[in-house]
Amino acid sequence: MTHAIARAHPNIALVKYWGKRDASANLPATGSLSMTLDVFPTTTTVTVDPVLARDLLVLGGEERDGVPRERVERFLDLVRAASGSAAHARVETVNTVPSAAGLASSASGFAALAGAAAAAYGLDLDERGLSRLARRGSGSASRSVIPGFAVWHAGTDDETSFAEQVPAPDLAMVVTMVDCREKAVSSREAMRRTVLTSPFYPAWVSSTRQSLESALSACAAGDVERLGRIAETNALRMHAVIQACDPPLRYLSPASVEIFDRIAALRERGIGAYATADAGPNVVVLTRPEDATTVAAEIAGLAETVTAHPGPGLQVLERVPR
Amino acid sequence: MTHAIARAHPNIALVKYWGKRDASANLPATGSLSMTLDVFPTTTTVTVDPVLARDLLVLGGEERDGVPRERVERFLDLVRAASGSAAHARVETVNTVPSAAGLASSASGFAALAGAAAAAYGLDLDERGLSRLARRGSGSASRSVIPGFAVWHAGTDDETSFAEQVPAPDLAMVVTMVDCREKAVSSREAMRRTVLTSPFYPAWVSSTRQSLESALSACAAGDVERLGRIAETNALRMHAVIQACDPPLRYLSPASVEIFDRIAALRERGIGAYATADAGPNVVVLTRPEDATTVAAEIAGLAETVTAHPGPGLQVLERVPR
Repeated sequence: MTHAIARAHPNIALVKYWGKRDASANLPATGSLSMTLDVFPTTTTVTVDPVLARDLLVLGGEERDGVPRERVERFLDLVRAASGSAAHARVETVNTVPSAAGLASSASGFAALAGAAAAAYGLDLDERGLSRLARRGSGSASRSVIPGFAVWHAGTDDETSFAEQVPAPDLAMVVTMVDCREKAVSSREAMRRTVLTSPFYPAWVSSTRQSLESALSACAAGDVERLGRIAETNALRMHAVIQACDPPLRYLSPASVEIFDRIAALRERGIGAYATADAGPNVVVLTRPEDATTVAAEIAGLAETVTAHPGPGLQVLERVPR
Repeated sequence: MTHAIARAHPNIALVKYWGKRDASANLPATGSLSMTLDVFPTTTTVTVDPVLARDLLVLGGEERDGVPRERVERFLDLVRAASGSAAHARVETVNTVPSAAGLASSASGFAALAGAAAAAYGLDLDERGLSRLARRGSGSASRSVIPGFAVWHAGTDDETSFAEQVPAPDLAMVVTMVDCREKAVSSREAMRRTVLTSPFYPAWVSSTRQSLESALSACAAGDVERLGRIAETNALRMHAVIQACDPPLRYLSPASVEIFDRIAALRERGIGAYATADAGPNVVVLTRPEDATTVAAEIAGLAETVTAHPGPGLQVLERVPR
């Protein structure tokens, strides 16, 4: 039996991934831009065991069946196909980020799984290869492979759709924990509904392409204000394109809206703070590292906060036998 | 001196008017559908006085200058041009709806002004003529001329853009008073920004055209559920197209979102209730008259409510000399 352990962190998009061009290969409708965090790591151990009749998933110490296990099995099928092995594996995952609350646990989860599985099955993949592999598990996982800031290129096929690092200004993210219960509608399902029923979806795609270009130029220029404004506008557009579904779908809660309001008020007081939120109620505030305490203080009383900085990319911690 | 008194009520749109095709004639990008309420009347007296050097506006007992007075003067210029009179007038208005809080005080205001001014200046206008005239003051005022449910036809020019009554199922509206302070950005300015900066605006226009057709067919069929679903979806799309502006613009407050959530929860308990909101935080809930008490009880504690039913159209109460 060989086993490998890998660790990855969630990422928060400044320009969002919302909508697939190709569901089977997880090719996105547009590119996106994110910061990988230095908090909430996921650590995953993959043990290849020829005795197993099927893959096993142990999540936070509990064996899981059903959809989560099947999703892992489909992912490992890709790794087995590439490695030539037919052996099944035991996958043990420990998340420190609340699952399925719009804090991108599937990003850190599939990035860590990609790293551990590639190592355990003996695939020799560089960063780009790992990013492409992680993408197959969950689109945004492609970005969690990358340290710091990452652009995920939409690409035109499996080979050209991967994330890579980009230079960016010094930023912190104040993560608010508004509500960490599992959300009623998964991102995957909500994306599907958006593509099928939101009349705003085509315009979302073209406006996001433009936002990504502008955001990359703001990154290159080290312009925190411009990058922050683009990120907040893009996030509110993502929630708008979702809200326009039929029937409507809403992820921002009253407390989320209150935080957006408070951040707008902070800006009027001259603090460069910008709000974003993935498909869930937990708002994340972009700010300069020196303003993170002020931002966290403003939100205290509404929600617990954790301040994050640019984190490491995917790390393989151990492989036995080496 | 001749004077005339007219009264009109606000209306709440089930399919929204948001965006102009022609700003000078107030021609809308799409048609819309509304219910005129039986609460919050505006009563306006127009006294034509050849001695006056300019029009005077007295709003709630206080003489007003600046933009509100100028808007009234521009409106009276249209009436004078049609009547052949050059005389100015004193306009006294009493609103019972909180001004500029997204409760359509400009709709009841310009409908009442159209009625009183037409009578005072001796214009002989039928309902359609009054609706067209009111439209020039404020687009949605065209609908407050009409009793009960009104469709405002987008039309192709001044002559063809007017509101008229449509049959509809028996409905009540529970109006919530979340926040009745004057809003930071007027509807007029927000519409302009939407047309200029929201990438979703063209799709909003085409989806609203479709929603209006479906809503009219639901009205004709007396289908409260279908009409309610269309109204809630269309309202959330209007807030979405606004939220997508650059910079973003948001009218729903945390309490508004809480009310949308509660109404969704009521539906899960089998109550046919549907939320809408104009450009402001005050949510209005559509429901069957027999469910209005249940809806109001659900919202009590969050906001004061007033229950409205289909109201009368524009009424001219007095003209002296007759």
